[in-house]
Amino acid sequence: MTIGIVGLGLIGGSLGLDLRSLGYRVVGASRKQDTCDRAVAIGAVDAAMTGLDLMRQAEVIFICTPLATMESTVLELIPHISSDTVLTDVGSVKGWVMQAVAPHWPNFVGGHPMAGKAENGIEAAQLGLFKGCAYVLTPNDQTPPAAVQQVEALVRPLQSRIYHCHPDEHDRAVAWISHLPAMISGSLVAACGSETDTSVLKLAQELASTGFRDTSRVGGGNPELGLMMARYNSESLVRSLHAYRDQLDKVIAQIEQADWAGLESRLQQNHNTRPDFVKCHQLGCG
Amino acid sequence: MTIGIVGLGLIGGSLGLDLRSLGYRVVGASRKQDTCDRAVAIGAVDAAMTGLDLMRQAEVIFICTPLATMESTVLELIPHISSDTVLTDVGSVKGWVMQAVAPHWPNFVGGHPMAGKAENGIEAAQLGLFKGCAYVLTPNDQTPPAAVQQVEALVRPLQSRIYHCHPDEHDRAVAWISHLPAMISGSLVAACGSETDTSVLKLAQELASTGFRDTSRVGGGNPELGLMMARYNSESLVRSLHAYRDQLDKVIAQIEQADWAGLESRLQQNHNTRPDFVKCHQLGCG
Repeated sequence: MTIGIVGLGLIGGSLGLDLRSLGYRVVGASRKQDTCDRAVAIGAVDAAMTGLDLMRQAEVIFICTPLATMESTVLELIPHISSDTVLTDVGSVKGWVMQAVAPHWPNFVGGHPMAGKAENGIEAAQLGLFKGCAYVLTPNDQTPPAAVQQVEALVRPLQSRIYHCHPDEHDRAVAWISHLPAMISGSLVAACGSETDTSVLKLAQELASTGFRDTSRVGGGNPELGLMMARYNSESLVRSLHAYRDQLDKVIAQIEQADWAGLESRLQQNHNTRPDFVKCHQLGCG
Repeated sequence: MTIGIVGLGLIGGSLGLDLRSLGYRVVGASRKQDTCDRAVAIGAVDAAMTGLDLMRQAEVIFICTPLATMESTVLELIPHISSDTVLTDVGSVKGWVMQAVAPHWPNFVGGHPMAGKAENGIEAAQLGLFKGCAYVLTPNDQTPPAAVQQVEALVRPLQSRIYHCHPDEHDRAVAWISHLPAMISGSLVAACGSETDTSVLKLAQELASTGFRDTSRVGGGNPELGLMMARYNSESLVRSLHAYRDQLDKVIAQIEQADWAGLESRLQQNHNTRPDFVKCHQLGCG
């Protein structure tokens, strides 16, 4: 069986490494010849080219391009493939994909492998990247169950934890645990940088340690990724941001009113609740 | 030379381990006999008791009790010590200490070793805890320079990075990089927990990964520590919280107004600014 991968970055390259190690033939496509050459060199694909001609050989094709170019990629792909080819994507927002991209192709399965690392691009691709990580599939009423099963059969041996859910549920959940953290973490960096007393600012920069480092990490990440979350998942993200602001306002009021009993019970509640979101099976997944 | 340590928790115990390894005799005091016994057993002190009698032997005494009991500890200590004894504390807020505690003793030097770990108490004490971490001394106009020099001479061999600054500058700086992160991180946990759709909440808990884990870590920490930051550094913390809220409001407005160019430049700015606060010498310090 031949698998296609369009977009040979971290996710596409890592999928290729895993699928080839499972015995599949993998063909790739990238806009840049250099990326095609690197993907072949590291063993992420058996063959790759800048056009989409190789994709006619593939039974299942993973679309691993950024959300912004996903629709045009699928439209460009359609003349090259037969009607029984299954397309699946790896985008981190699913409502928009299912509305804007999926209708172009009946055999389209929305997917989101929740793996990542600080580095991007084909050079960062690694075998086993998806092991232990969540892989969410988001079929809707139009998605053929056979296509979902075919993608799931390919993905299961990657040893990821497979979830099925509605695209909107996915987007609301990732707004809470991925897109909201990026925005509030970034606002920490912006707020600290707004200090106008330069001696306090310099001292803060010297004294910042693990607490600041961890809290600010996702906020200091790739600006393009952050922009994409906001742009393609704006409704759920705005909803989460307003709920967050309500909680922040309550903390500010408790401190301003010296309501220490109220603040203590809030901090205790946070301490008790956090472990529900932080489970050992997730360590290492991006 | 004999050093005293009042309060044998993580910081007091670790100071004892380091100072004994440097050849000093260390005497300790704790409210609990069991803690005194453990401190002797792990080699953090040469001797320890629940009363303050041993402290008359010490030339320099580190007050390592929580901020809430620091003033009463110093008042209790005074009848036991001679006028040339130097007292120094390890509290994480310095304006309040210099206003409420320091005036009781002329030879008082405010200090803040910025080390820590997830575990607390004497069992968590470790040799070399302060290595590479910041150790801030906050003398004011009344602090005798000789006392500052004496504390600095003891602390320098711990291989921490020593800073001198005004107590208020310290408090404003730690509000930015330590106390603000705790509050905004806790509000993330509270906001996610406020989701009323149980299937979205459960999915969020399943999908939460390293991004959520890091951003929420300090907010899910020890509630007593969080309360203490808010209580003893409320003025600087409220100031930082309002500046933070302004930044958050700007992000929300940019997303609501689909101002993607503005949002992208904001995210790029955060990406560029964060490294000023995250330096390699600080890795491993709490």
